[in-house]
Amino acid sequence: MAKAAPISPLAPKTVPEIPPIEGVRFAAGAAGVRYKGRTDVMLALLDEGTRVAGVFTKSKCPSAPVDWCRARIEGGKARALLVNSGNANAFTGKAGKDAVKLSARLAAAATGASERQIFLASTGVIGEPLDASKFEDVLPKLVKKASPDAWQDAARAIMTTDTYPKLSTRAASIDGVETRIAGFAKGAGMIAPDMATMLAFVFTDAAIGADALQTLLSRSVRGSFNAITVDSDTSTSDTLLLFATGAAAARGAPDIEKANDPRLEAFRTALDEVLLDLAHQVVKDGEGARKFVEIAVEGAETDRAAKRIALSIANSPLVKTAIAGEDANWGRVVMAVGKAGEQADRDRLAIWFGGVRVAHKGLRDPGYDEAAVSEIMKRDEIALRVDIGLGAGSAKVWTCDLTKEYVAINGDYRS
Amino acid sequence: MAKAAPISPLAPKTVPEIPPIEGVRFAAGAAGVRYKGRTDVMLALLDEGTRVAGVFTKSKCPSAPVDWCRARIEGGKARALLVNSGNANAFTGKAGKDAVKLSARLAAAATGASERQIFLASTGVIGEPLDASKFEDVLPKLVKKASPDAWQDAARAIMTTDTYPKLSTRAASIDGVETRIAGFAKGAGMIAPDMATMLAFVFTDAAIGADALQTLLSRSVRGSFNAITVDSDTSTSDTLLLFATGAAAARGAPDIEKANDPRLEAFRTALDEVLLDLAHQVVKDGEGARKFVEIAVEGAETDRAAKRIALSIANSPLVKTAIAGEDANWGRVVMAVGKAGEQADRDRLAIWFGGVRVAHKGLRDPGYDEAAVSEIMKRDEIALRVDIGLGAGSAKVWTCDLTKEYVAINGDYRS
Repeated sequence: MAKAAPISPLAPKTVPEIPPIEGVRFAAGAAGVRYKGRTDVMLALLDEGTRVAGVFTKSKCPSAPVDWCRARIEGGKARALLVNSGNANAFTGKAGKDAVKLSARLAAAATGASERQIFLASTGVIGEPLDASKFEDVLPKLVKKASPDAWQDAARAIMTTDTYPKLSTRAASIDGVETRIAGFAKGAGMIAPDMATMLAFVFTDAAIGADALQTLLSRSVRGSFNAITVDSDTSTSDTLLLFATGAAAARGAPDIEKANDPRLEAFRTALDEVLLDLAHQVVKDGEGARKFVEIAVEGAETDRAAKRIALSIANSPLVKTAIAGEDANWGRVVMAVGKAGEQADRDRLAIWFGGVRVAHKGLRDPGYDEAAVSEIMKRDEIALRVDIGLGAGSAKVWTCDLTKEYVAINGDYRS
Repeated sequence: MAKAAPISPLAPKTVPEIPPIEGVRFAAGAAGVRYKGRTDVMLALLDEGTRVAGVFTKSKCPSAPVDWCRARIEGGKARALLVNSGNANAFTGKAGKDAVKLSARLAAAATGASERQIFLASTGVIGEPLDASKFEDVLPKLVKKASPDAWQDAARAIMTTDTYPKLSTRAASIDGVETRIAGFAKGAGMIAPDMATMLAFVFTDAAIGADALQTLLSRSVRGSFNAITVDSDTSTSDTLLLFATGAAAARGAPDIEKANDPRLEAFRTALDEVLLDLAHQVVKDGEGARKFVEIAVEGAETDRAAKRIALSIANSPLVKTAIAGEDANWGRVVMAVGKAGEQADRDRLAIWFGGVRVAHKGLRDPGYDEAAVSEIMKRDEIALRVDIGLGAGSAKVWTCDLTKEYVAINGDYRS
C-alpha cells in the first residue's frame, strides 16, 4: 500500500453535509479483504421499488463486477449495493465470476432481496482472486447497523488512495414536491501496484422509471464524468450507478416514465450539477495534481469535434507539464489541437489563458500582458479557452496538471 | 534554453562512421537564428538529377516549412536542403510563409538551383517570426565549404536538446552494384519552451524514380518512424525526407522506376534498417528516458488492431511509470489493452516481460518466477509481449519509460 498522501491542495475546503434520502440506508465495515481491521466494505440498502440506471467503463477487458452489473441493469430494479475496496476482482477469470456470484448470494441472504437486484463494485489490486466468503460474517452486521445518515462513512469506505471523501447533493422540485439527489465518488486514486478506478453512486428519492433514469444518466455523464481526464488511462472497473427509491411519491411526487417530461427540468439540472461536482472532485484528487484545469473549445465544426480537440489538449503530456510549470505555453496547445485529427486552421486559432488572449490569427497576440498571464498561471484553477474559428461546435472538459508527484505515485512504489 | 542534459544512458556506445554518398555534400554554420555563435544551420547540396520523397506530420496545424515541402514534394526533384534549429517557424502565419519564401530564394541564389528544388525544415521555438534574412550571409560560405565527409557536423547542426547525434548507414546491392543509404535524425528533444520535433534526412546514391522512392519511404516508415512514441504528442514540424542522387548509375546501377522491382529487395531491407535504427535512436534520446521498451502485440484480429493496441500500451502513462519503477505491472497492460477500443477477451490474454510469461488465460501465471522478472525489469532494454489470442494480426512499437526527468524537462524550465 502506498504511504498516505497529504490531502490534495485542490480539495474542497469543507466536506458537504448530506441529508438523508428516503429509502436509502448505509453501513460500512471491515471485511479484511486485503488488510485486517481496515474499513473496506460498504453496503447500501434500498427500499422495495428502487429503480436503477448505470454507465460503465468502455474497456474491452472489464472487471467481473462490471460484467455482473451490466447484465442486471436491464432489469431496472435494485435492493442493495455492495462495494469493497482492497481488491478490484479484475483479470481474475472464472474465479472472478464465482466471486461476484458468491458476493451477490451472501448480500441477498443478508438483505432478503433477490440476487438479481444486488449491485456490486470492487476497487483495489487486480489479478488477485477476491475471497468473497470474507463478506459472510460482516454483511448481517452491516444490515443491522445501516443508517440513513451514514453518508460520510459510506464515502470513506470506498476510498483507496483518494486523499479526501467526495460527496455532493442538490434539491430539485418535481411538480411542486421537493426531491433530493445525493451521491459520492472515488478516484482517480491508486492502489499500489495497480490502476486508478472511478466509482460513483448517486441516489434520489424521486419516482422515475428505469428507462427514463437511464436516459437521464447517459445524457448527464457526457458533460461530467465523460468530460474529465487525469492521465487518459481507462480503468477496467469504472462504474456509475444512479438509484431512484421513489419514496417522494408518498409525499405527492408524480411517477415519471419519460426522460423528456417537462416536470423533470429542475431535476435534470440538479442531476447535472451533482455529477459535475463529483467529477470535478475526482479530478481535483488526481494523482499528484496541483492545478485544476478547465479546457473550453469553441468554434469547432461540431460539438463532437470540439470534445475530441478538448480531450487532445487535456491528455497532452506536454500541455500538462507546461501547466505544472506555470507556463502559458500556447505553442503546445496548438500542437495538441493539430494532433486531434479534427479540422483546424492555424491562421484562425485563438487561445486564452484565464481570459487573456495569448494567440490570435496564427500569431502570438501582440497586445498580451505577460505579467497578467504569469499571475493567472500561479492560480490553483486555470481556465484555458480555444476558439477554432470554423463553426459552432463547443465542448468543455476538465483535467489536472502532470507533476513529478504523479510519476512518483505511479512509479516509485517498488524502488 | 534548457541547461545541457547529460547524454542519455540509452545512447549508442559509439557514433557510427558514415562514408560519403556520391552526389551529396554537407556544411554547417552559425546564422544567429536565436543565439549568436551557435551552430544552427545545415545545408545539404544535392547533384543535378536527385529525386526526393517525403513524409510529414499528420498535424492539422503544420509549420510553414512543412507546408512548403509538401507542396514541392510532388515535383520529385531536389537540389538542396536547408535546415535551421533555434526557431521552428510554426504558428507564424503570413510571416512564416514569407520566411520560407525568402529562405528558398536565398538558398536558390547561393546554390544556383531552382527555388522549387529547395527543401526546408526548421526546429526550435514556435510562434516567433523567423528572420530568414539571417541566412543571406552564411549560405554562400556553406556552399563553398560543403564536403561529402561532413556527416557529423550536419547531424549535430540540427540537434536541439538531443543529447547525442543520431546517424545510421547501410549498403545494398542493386543488380550487382553496391549502393549506400545513410542519414541522420533529431528528436524527441525539446527546445524550451516549446515542443519536441522529429526531423530525419536520409540519402542514397541509388537511381530510383521519385514515385518509387515515395512508395518505398511510405512503406518503410510504417514499421519505424510511425511505430515509435515518446509521449503521444505530435509536433507541427515532423519531417522525413529521402533523397536519391542516382550517382550509382555511373557505376552501372540500373535506374529503377517501380518500388516492387525485385532488384530493390536488398535496398528495401537496408532502407528499413536505417529508418528503424534512426527511429530507435530517437526513442533512446526521449526526454528523461531511462529504459527502451519494445512492445510486440500478436494474436489481434488484424495488424491494424495490433498496432492500435501496441500504441495504447506504449502511450499509457500508467504503463510507462510502472516501467520507470521497474515493476512488471501486467495489470496496467491489461488496462491499456482494454482501452484501445479493439476486440480483446480478458480470458485469452497472455503477457510476457522479457520472455517470462506473467499472465495467462485471464489470470496471473501461477508458475512465473518473480525474481527472474525483477532482474529483467532492471535492464536498460525491456521487451513486452502481449498475445491477444484472437487472430493473426501483429505489430511492434517502441517507446521509453515516463520519469520524473520528463516532467522536469517539460515543466521546470520556468520555475
